[in-house]
Amino acid sequence: MTTPPAWNRQRLRSNNEWLLLERLRTSGPASRAQLARASGLSKPTVSSALAALERGGLVREAGTHAGSRGRVAVLYEPDPRAGHVLGIDIGRARLRTVVADLAGTVVARTETRNRGRSATAVAAAALACAQQAISEAELTPDAIVHTAVGTPGVFDRHTGRVRYAVNLPGWGRPGLVERMRDRLGTPLSVHNDANLAALGEYTFGAGAGSRLFVYVLVGTGLGMGVVADGELFLGAHGAAGEIGFLPLDGVPRSGSAPRRGLLEDAVSADAVVRAARDRGLTGPLTAKRVFDAARTGDPAALDAVRQEGERLALAVATVTAVLDPDLVILGGGVGGGADLLLTTVTDTLHRLTPLRPRVEAGTAGDDAVLLGALTTALRAARPLVFDRRTGIAQTH
Amino acid sequence: MTTPPAWNRQRLRSNNEWLLLERLRTSGPASRAQLARASGLSKPTVSSALAALERGGLVREAGTHAGSRGRVAVLYEPDPRAGHVLGIDIGRARLRTVVADLAGTVVARTETRNRGRSATAVAAAALACAQQAISEAELTPDAIVHTAVGTPGVFDRHTGRVRYAVNLPGWGRPGLVERMRDRLGTPLSVHNDANLAALGEYTFGAGAGSRLFVYVLVGTGLGMGVVADGELFLGAHGAAGEIGFLPLDGVPRSGSAPRRGLLEDAVSADAVVRAARDRGLTGPLTAKRVFDAARTGDPAALDAVRQEGERLALAVATVTAVLDPDLVILGGGVGGGADLLLTTVTDTLHRLTPLRPRVEAGTAGDDAVLLGALTTALRAARPLVFDRRTGIAQTH
Repeated sequence: MTTPPAWNRQRLRSNNEWLLLERLRTSGPASRAQLARASGLSKPTVSSALAALERGGLVREAGTHAGSRGRVAVLYEPDPRAGHVLGIDIGRARLRTVVADLAGTVVARTETRNRGRSATAVAAAALACAQQAISEAELTPDAIVHTAVGTPGVFDRHTGRVRYAVNLPGWGRPGLVERMRDRLGTPLSVHNDANLAALGEYTFGAGAGSRLFVYVLVGTGLGMGVVADGELFLGAHGAAGEIGFLPLDGVPRSGSAPRRGLLEDAVSADAVVRAARDRGLTGPLTAKRVFDAARTGDPAALDAVRQEGERLALAVATVTAVLDPDLVILGGGVGGGADLLLTTVTDTLHRLTPLRPRVEAGTAGDDAVLLGALTTALRAARPLVFDRRTGIAQTH
Repeated sequence: MTTPPAWNRQRLRSNNEWLLLERLRTSGPASRAQLARASGLSKPTVSSALAALERGGLVREAGTHAGSRGRVAVLYEPDPRAGHVLGIDIGRARLRTVVADLAGTVVARTETRNRGRSATAVAAAALACAQQAISEAELTPDAIVHTAVGTPGVFDRHTGRVRYAVNLPGWGRPGLVERMRDRLGTPLSVHNDANLAALGEYTFGAGAGSRLFVYVLVGTGLGMGVVADGELFLGAHGAAGEIGFLPLDGVPRSGSAPRRGLLEDAVSADAVVRAARDRGLTGPLTAKRVFDAARTGDPAALDAVRQEGERLALAVATVTAVLDPDLVILGGGVGGGADLLLTTVTDTLHRLTPLRPRVEAGTAGDDAVLLGALTTALRAARPLVFDRRTGIAQTH
């Protein structure tokens, strides 16, 4: 039997404090009177809640404003120094970290090329980056309430291992996540990079306000993150959006093994390069160089980009029939060529399905995963800091 | 600015009453002492809440049990007579209706063939069915707190019209839903049949306890319902799961119009019949007859069924890469041949993807949509009845 929440007095009191704190965070500084009007709580209740929050270092005074009848009222805001968080983006090409206060204001960030040849080396380099950022923020690891890490693949809570991270060799080995947690010395959670990018674009970028938002991360690999009503949609085992596994070529012959990459092979950065070579482009090619050549009007590059757009449209049509999103954002290295891709994607989509989500470029760019890690770390840290500083962690 | 909920005393009181009522509904009859222990509320609070619920006709005594120290304690249960609901399944072949009390106990049901040749005739026949069920339950329409209707297609709240119901001609015309509501004389909501079937299997059938549950309705058409953590996942415009729109054959030629049915044409009942004819079966065929012939070992029928299983596996693999369900139920007329299909579906799925949801037959059978309509009507009716009978409807 599940016990329903009991709304006794102590729970009620801390609930009011939490509601007032969240209101100050989302709607900006406010006076006691403003908070009482907005919340429906009595002024004495608001006053005692604010006093408790101030004692706990959770809110602070933020100036005054002229209240009704000329009285000067004190404004309150959440104290951003109540805690800090760390976000880490372990990308195939680059390692990025960010330290922010509880208001989400970035106080330090670092970035370096990912030169690691083994999972251990990549993890060590990411940790060095993170330690540098903590130190630049003039903090120690114990000030970090939560660290969120974005990587390719799906983190399996049961085994503690990352699965399906085929583009990051050795990344799925057991114990890697625990070792990172131990060495960094902060609570740490690991998340799929496309999921974090989706959350980053939702919170800070082009996805804001979407009811059902899909972020397609196209680069070395292919991933997708889904944000439904502001929350990540993860599926039963955290593998929702693993559209690299989408079958595109019908049913394989009996006896053949399943493999990733039917769609991933067809649309990732390598596919753009292959298509350009097939059409006669030469030299050391990358997807970015193909897009650059297309922007100068090179017909072979343009045709390679057109094919990429058609294949992405097929992926978007497939995802749309299952999820019915109102917005699809193209991100990642290939998604960064959205200026060239969007017309083809939209036109092809209209031939494929009567369902019509908007398809757009992201605005968070290369920072999407990092911003998603920051958001995730903040969402984990805020209730923890509240519980600790209001004493709930001790009494419950 | 959104106002956060204010937890003032009145709200607190009605909240406690609601929590106690829901607990009695989900965990069975209980005494005041048991409710106080389970909820963390004080015995006086529980007593006064139960008294208010009893005055409002929401709970009733349900016998006694020997309490601690030999005292006899009165047990309480929700009063199922506090209201009734109506569920209607408008299927292409049959019309079904059910009347139930607020505990979900069926008190009347009717079923008839759908002979209607126009949307107006189908609606009229469904209403006649519903009125017969209400009358058999010895009720009048004003006793029906909510009516939920399942139909093919997607009900668009903005236009009040059903979209994409291509297998039920005329069903998308404006005003049809309002006219049904007016003629029946009860509050009425319209829902996609596959969504209701998913909810029906989740609540009463094989989907119980699944975190992310997908119901594939394969019959005259093709639909899908998704239940995430017990709630229907509807997408941004209610069209999630419209997998009839899944593109299967790559990118169509420039200039061709989008159309439904790429996947629907390939896996619906007609496809089974076509496949059987192609393999030499003759006579007046239906999908059911093809399955029956396969059960007697007919090689042509078996091969048609194998092709159907492979195509369904392709659909399941596609849906799985996007949603990551833990359970996929096959339902509907073709899904009813699951005993023949499951081995092929599972084997093919293993060749298509490393993601492995369980694939099973439904247990609610032809009643899945109707049970989902019942569930939906109950979910709408319970808080309404509570608000009316505790007076919240008047004071808020």
